[in-house]
Order: sequence, then structure tokens, then C-alpha cells
Amino acid sequence: MSDAVVETDVVIVGAGPAGLFQVFELGLLGIKAHVVDSLPHVGGQCAELYPDKPIYDIPAIPVCSAQELIDRLMEQIKPFEPSFHLGHEVSGLKRLDDQRFELTTSRGQQFVTQTVIIAGGLGAFQPRPLRVKGAEQFNGSLIQYKVKDPERYRDKTVAILGGGDSALDWALELEKIARRVILIHRRKEFRGAQASVDKLMQLCTEGDIEFIPAQMKQVNEEEGRFAGLTVKPLDSDELQQVDCDEVLVFYGLSPNLGPIGEWGLNQQRNQIEVDTETFQTSIPGIFAVGDINTYPGKKKLILSGFHEGALAAFAVDKYLNPDKKQFLQYTTTSPVMHERLGVKETDDA
Amino acid sequence: MSDAVVETDVVIVGAGPAGLFQVFELGLLGIKAHVVDSLPHVGGQCAELYPDKPIYDIPAIPVCSAQELIDRLMEQIKPFEPSFHLGHEVSGLKRLDDQRFELTTSRGQQFVTQTVIIAGGLGAFQPRPLRVKGAEQFNGSLIQYKVKDPERYRDKTVAILGGGDSALDWALELEKIARRVILIHRRKEFRGAQASVDKLMQLCTEGDIEFIPAQMKQVNEEEGRFAGLTVKPLDSDELQQVDCDEVLVFYGLSPNLGPIGEWGLNQQRNQIEVDTETFQTSIPGIFAVGDINTYPGKKKLILSGFHEGALAAFAVDKYLNPDKKQFLQYTTTSPVMHERLGVKETDDA
Repeated sequence: MSDAVVETDVVIVGAGPAGLFQVFELGLLGIKAHVVDSLPHVGGQCAELYPDKPIYDIPAIPVCSAQELIDRLMEQIKPFEPSFHLGHEVSGLKRLDDQRFELTTSRGQQFVTQTVIIAGGLGAFQPRPLRVKGAEQFNGSLIQYKVKDPERYRDKTVAILGGGDSALDWALELEKIARRVILIHRRKEFRGAQASVDKLMQLCTEGDIEFIPAQMKQVNEEEGRFAGLTVKPLDSDELQQVDCDEVLVFYGLSPNLGPIGEWGLNQQRNQIEVDTETFQTSIPGIFAVGDINTYPGKKKLILSGFHEGALAAFAVDKYLNPDKKQFLQYTTTSPVMHERLGVKETDDA
Repeated sequence: MSDAVVETDVVIVGAGPAGLFQVFELGLLGIKAHVVDSLPHVGGQCAELYPDKPIYDIPAIPVCSAQELIDRLMEQIKPFEPSFHLGHEVSGLKRLDDQRFELTTSRGQQFVTQTVIIAGGLGAFQPRPLRVKGAEQFNGSLIQYKVKDPERYRDKTVAILGGGDSALDWALELEKIARRVILIHRRKEFRGAQASVDKLMQLCTEGDIEFIPAQMKQVNEEEGRFAGLTVKPLDSDELQQVDCDEVLVFYGLSPNLGPIGEWGLNQQRNQIEVDTETFQTSIPGIFAVGDINTYPGKKKLILSGFHEGALAAFAVDKYLNPDKKQFLQYTTTSPVMHERLGVKETDDA
């Protein structure tokens, strides 16, 4: 079943907030979409990077967590029953003779689609790897880039590398169960929330966390086995050995368009150029919304992705139905919109 | 106090959703704003025209009433303590020698401001008047354009003119208390929600509402007193007299820029031209967001007004502080944003 070619009007690449709301705006215009995402769940960066952090700048939602935002969007798009293909990274794209696109995923799913809307956020983003001597050998084993299960670190000595929110948060969290937490950061200042920094400093003073401001130099091995780290402390010229059982690296994510970067779209610094009338890219039939696109004045705001998705939906509708007369109908008053939304008219409407 | 000249960085003209969210986006950048609106309350068209109607296309809010949307925005902008000047229609604008603007309201309030952001929706909108012979004499007395108090119509014979939602809704509503409701519309089809139309047809069949598809011809008077209406029915060439005590006209609103139309801004069909990078108008220092502006691809969507307000805020910040380096800070992570929002850092942040 998953191997059958899917024929559709629209494939949305990315299931973050912009991709999910894109489903909604297309749905209002009566257009169904398939959504592909490399992550195994919906929500994109939001759900992946900061699910529990509060967001304050979604219009008319004074505060919500990233996960709540995603949950609300999933609720909102329910009437349009999008088909999700999760855990699929898009790979090849080619234009067919009939002007449709053939889109393939890393897991072999094929789509034949009239249009593609790229809502890929930072791309199929990857954690920035630790690139010092010896690291490669232990990447994915004793060197991890995310915490899948905190229990793994119970009663272990964990070296945490990095100075942003993820590094701070996990240092504070793992301190509760690890034997020892050693935080290694190349500066004395942190990029994280002040409250986290304050808490960290307090725990350092109390001896519960060890903070070493130092540059990573090497991952050591002895007879093929992991044997701690070598660092160069900021205040000293002498190298220092750091004994530990496990390493967690939080050096941020490297934005990477991945295979999309090879599709021949005009780009500026890893971002896809679009025009602000249609949010179409340099290739007709391919659109881009959200953090992955760029245009004069662009700010990477979730609310901008929403606006872009709305205008892109109208442009896709026009692309699919060039002769259809378009007019704007409001969800408040339009019976057509109500029918598409599955909303029952109330007697006092 | 209200007569003192207000000196400020920004005056926002319009307290609808776009104007209110504009306060928020400016606030995040540390800029305070004064908000002027011709209506006596915040909310603009939303709160005025359809306070109880559900809106479905605000991102991440599957459904809310217009009033609820306004309430949520008011809650969201609370930290930024905007100054509201309600019941003031803006009138004169002139550029001072120091490049600031002097803005005056209908009630004599003066502002001296660096920038103006017009978020005026449809303008200082007015109901479209009934323009037939004899109407002028009874406008504002027996001919009304909104229902202030339904009790006024108890046991009266009320002629309702129009075929949109307002006409239908009030026909259905007043049928319950009026002696008789006569709906006069120039077509046999209605523009309102299907459920309302169905209900209306049912009540017409049952004789509770009389529907006359007809053109309005004249408002009659006898010795200075109101004496019913003359209409030309669609299916007949003979004029018909309609006896009634009161007339309610729902011919929609006429978009009207009002005095703003005289400020010398480039316009297209009553809409103010802006560029999509800064949402600045043809006059530097004057910006326009929401339904009142136009640019290629423009759709009059509330969510677009939100996006426009965000980019306009950055542009205003740049205009006010041309030498300041701008960078995007996120409400999720930035301590500066948290301080401006008055958000307490939580221990587990």
C-alpha cells in the first residue's frame, strides 16, 4: 500500500506549524493535500526542539506551549483529513512531460503531484556534530545528540557539551539522576534563559554540577574503548582530562536544505526565494512557506508562515484551476466554507 | 487633560484586530503606542458587525467568536499598556518641520508623532444609506440602520430592507416580538447563511414573515408624518404600498477612507498602497496594515493583518532608530522579550 504511487494535487513538505496550517488554507478552498515529514511525528522544530516552552506571539493566544500550538492546529485541520507520510525525507523531484512532478521519499514512497509546497522549516535539520579528533568513532553510541531516555544516564558521569537552552536544560534535569554532570562550554556566558543560567550557577556553587569553560580538543580512546575527553580550559594553557561515561552534545542544529537544495530552486543562504504575491519559488508549481523561504523583509515568525500559507493556497488554487474565478469567502459567513469545515449551521446563525 | 498635545513615537489609527495586534508587535520591540478609533469601543468591524458570529480561520484557534478574538487580543497586549483614544475620528494630518506628524481628531485631540500606522479596516465605515425619495426626512428617526434595542419594535410592524445576513438575522429575531415583519429585498435570492435562508422561507410559508421581492421606490409622508413605503415588486409593473411603523435598512457598509483619503497617500480603489517589505505607504513614516491596505496578492484576512503588523513593527523600529542593529528575538527564548511581556521566568524554563 505504501509503495503505490500517490496521485494528488498538492504535496506539502513539512509538518510543522506552517505545513499544518497550509493544509487548513488549502482545505478551505476545497483542495486536499498529502503531507510528508522526515520526523516521525507532526510538529516540526516546535515539537522537536522546545515542546514545553511557552510561545507568546501567536496572535490571540497570549501564551501556549509549542506542543499545544501543534495540538490546536491538528484540531483545526481535522475536517480536511490530510494524509500524513511521516518519517519520510523527500529526496528526488523531477518534472514529468505532463508538467506534473514526480516526488520520491527516502523510503521509496512516490507521489505524482500537480504542485509542491515546501514548508520545511530549517530543512531536514540535523544536530551540529562534534567535530574533534576521535569523535566519529563514538558518534551515535557514547556520544549522543539528544536524550531519548533520561534513565540511560542514571548514576553515570555525563559530560554535556554546549551553552544554549538544550545544554542548560539537560544539565539541570540530568543532575537529578546522574552520578555527576559536567558541563563543558567554550565561553563563560550562556545563551540560555536567565533563570536556567541562575539555577545552573547555584548548582555549580553547591558542587552538584561541574562547569568547565573550555574548548573541546579530543575524544579519547584506549584499545578501542571510550576513555573520556581532552579539553583546553579558557583560563589555562594546559590541556585537561575529563573522565566521563557518556557525552551529550548540544551544539544547535545546522540548517540544511538537504535534497531540496538540489531541485534547482533559486536560493539565498540556504533559503528559498519566493515572491510575496503567490509564495511561488523560481519553479512554477513549487511554492515555499514558513522559515524555509525568503523575500525582502522576511522574518522567521510562525505567524508569517500562516499568512504565507493563506496566500500560497490561493495561488495553488489558481495554478490548479487557471480559469476559475476566485473570490474571497469568509469562514464567518460563507455556507461553502461551513460545509468544508463540517460546521453545522446553528439556528441563530 | 484630553486637550493636551500627546507626543509619541507611534499613533495607530484603528482598534480592530490588526490595530490591537500592532500594539503587541511594537511592544515586543519596546515601542509604545497610542491607539485612536472612531468607534466608542475596541474591536473594529469584528465587534461592531458580527460580535457573536464564529470565526474559523484564525490560526490555532479552531473556532472563536469575533468578540472572543478581540478579548484575547486585549489580554495579549495588556503588558504593553497602550493608551486608547476611543470615539475619536482622525481628521487632519500635517508634516511638521522636524519631520514628525501632527495628527488631529474630530474631538480636538492633538498628537505629535514620529510615525502613524493606519489599521483602519474598511475606514470609518458607515452603513449604506437608503437613497430614495423621502428617505432623508426620516433617516435616524423612523428609518434606522442598526438595532440598538429590539424592544423598540415590540408589537410594531417593521419593514426590513436588505438581503444579507444582518437583514435575515434581524427578520428572524424581530419576528418573535414585532406585530409583523416585512422583508423587502430587490432579488429573490439572499446572500445570507443557508440555514437563515431556510428558516426565513419556512416562516414566510407559515405566514409569520412577509417577504416582498421588490425595489424600493419611495418613503411616503402625509402632512409631515411617516406613511409607509412604495415599492416596485419584481414580478409586476404596478407599484405597491407597504404599510409599516418602522423601517430597518441593512444595505451593508460603504467603505470610506474618510479624512485619511485626503492625506495624499497613493491609493487603489479606496485602499492604501503599501510595499510588502515594510508595509509603509507612499509617505515615509506612514504605514498601513490590515483590510485598509493593498499590495499584489492582498487578501482581506485577519491573519494577514497580523503578519503585516509584525513586519510593520520592525520597519517602524528601523524608522525610529535607523542606526540600531536589528535582530530577531523569539518570545520563547529571549529574556528581553520576557521582560517586556512581564513574564516571570519559570524554574524549569
